[in-house]
Amino acid sequence: MAAPASLAMEQMGSENEEQEQISKLLTGMNDEHGGVIVEMTTEPMDAHVFSSLLRTSISHWRQQGKKGVWIKFPIELVNLVEPAVKEGFYFHHAEPKYLMLVHWIPETTNTLPGNATHRVRIGAFVMNEKKEVLVVQEKNGVLRGTGVWKFPTGVVDEGEDICDAAVREVKEETGIDTNFVEILAFRQSHKSFFEKSDLFFMCLLQPLSFDIQIQESEIEAAQWMPFEEYMSQHFVQKNELLKCIADICLTKREGKYSGFSTVPTTTSFSDNKSYLYLSRQFLNSP
Amino acid sequence: MAAPASLAMEQMGSENEEQEQISKLLTGMNDEHGGVIVEMTTEPMDAHVFSSLLRTSISHWRQQGKKGVWIKFPIELVNLVEPAVKEGFYFHHAEPKYLMLVHWIPETTNTLPGNATHRVRIGAFVMNEKKEVLVVQEKNGVLRGTGVWKFPTGVVDEGEDICDAAVREVKEETGIDTNFVEILAFRQSHKSFFEKSDLFFMCLLQPLSFDIQIQESEIEAAQWMPFEEYMSQHFVQKNELLKCIADICLTKREGKYSGFSTVPTTTSFSDNKSYLYLSRQFLNSP
Repeated sequence: MAAPASLAMEQMGSENEEQEQISKLLTGMNDEHGGVIVEMTTEPMDAHVFSSLLRTSISHWRQQGKKGVWIKFPIELVNLVEPAVKEGFYFHHAEPKYLMLVHWIPETTNTLPGNATHRVRIGAFVMNEKKEVLVVQEKNGVLRGTGVWKFPTGVVDEGEDICDAAVREVKEETGIDTNFVEILAFRQSHKSFFEKSDLFFMCLLQPLSFDIQIQESEIEAAQWMPFEEYMSQHFVQKNELLKCIADICLTKREGKYSGFSTVPTTTSFSDNKSYLYLSRQFLNSP
Repeated sequence: MAAPASLAMEQMGSENEEQEQISKLLTGMNDEHGGVIVEMTTEPMDAHVFSSLLRTSISHWRQQGKKGVWIKFPIELVNLVEPAVKEGFYFHHAEPKYLMLVHWIPETTNTLPGNATHRVRIGAFVMNEKKEVLVVQEKNGVLRGTGVWKFPTGVVDEGEDICDAAVREVKEETGIDTNFVEILAFRQSHKSFFEKSDLFFMCLLQPLSFDIQIQESEIEAAQWMPFEEYMSQHFVQKNELLKCIADICLTKREGKYSGFSTVPTTTSFSDNKSYLYLSRQFLNSP
């Protein structure tokens, strides 16, 4: 999002020959919202040197009328996080290798965007021509050792499309190749991990291969199971959500249901393709 | 998720009268995955004292066969973040007032859950009986000052249901009361802010009131506009995504489309109600 700040400094004011004092500033890139983004490199920096640079830079940005100031610290520079907090920065988001801090300079209301709030997961309904459904037993998690057969599920990776994640997870867990067909339903649940929420998309996939090869690290067993046998499991029957999802799959199997299919679209803001998920009825309408 | 750690210490081994040495440990709560969660209070702690406590605690947890160790630092204790990183912890996630660090103790593969990856937003399609649609002009953002009329949109709050967020945003921006009807379509896009993705849900709402009262801080103007006039805007026509969404709304208006409605469900794992979104066809099927 911003060019590396190299030594994260630039020189300014060196034309003032009388003072011969060189003020140094952190180097940032302007963003589209009147803010500045500073990406620190991993080169070590003394906390006192940084504090001084930061103070001068904030006063410079304030004069320029800047609003939000973002500083991205690689984990190697964790020693600079405390000085930044002392200058009024707060945590925005973090990933294993970096921490993003932000500071709102103006007196006006802070309009900075919030952090990501949801994890996205998929479940896969894959049925062959014998009306058997692809199910697995997991080696880890709450169902470990229970003998319960479940649909393949998994977490959508950062930057991954939901439709691609479903195909990838089925391939990884069972070795089966599939085509994405549609999203049958989805569920939103809260406080799924810490304060974060969860969006779970139940996907219909069409199998392209049939020989199962399980993922040894995560999967205990996998098989093609008659759908009625899957449905009749006590675990499915007593779980309102799973029962409802299974009923939707059954309705779909009978040709009486249509979920959301993918349509690639672009916007005028960006050239990136992104998927719109909508009802197939729309595509069939004149 | 865990009880406050008060002084984040507990005494152990004080029964050994010969040594009279008291080892202190950080106090954590066990989680369901063989891990420990430590929630630090905001009480100040010296970084060296913390480092020593942490080292002793890690060795204790290792002996106990613990896997993931989570430490939640309030921003007031930012001075303890660097010592934790030096002991092998890395960033997991952050919110304005805290930073969560994690450390995977065993030699085996790290199976800790990832961070939240998506922000969730809504758009609202609200039409009155005169076939006029509720539109706004925003005071901020890329459309500021362009004269473009758009559907009300907004970010789903942490822990908020999508259907509730749509009703809330319409009420806040325009003063109009509505009932949630269904999700017409949704779009997933990537690198929407930093590396995070965006899920945008287009919702159909039924208006219950009609007198517009705009939110002065964010909205420049709002009105009920003939749908054809909205559609004919150059901005809508040249934007593939908006055009497609508008076409879906039109198809819906003609009664030829059904999106996803809400059904409250529970699972056997938790008593919390959560919404399943699915096609109304399912609810109508025998």
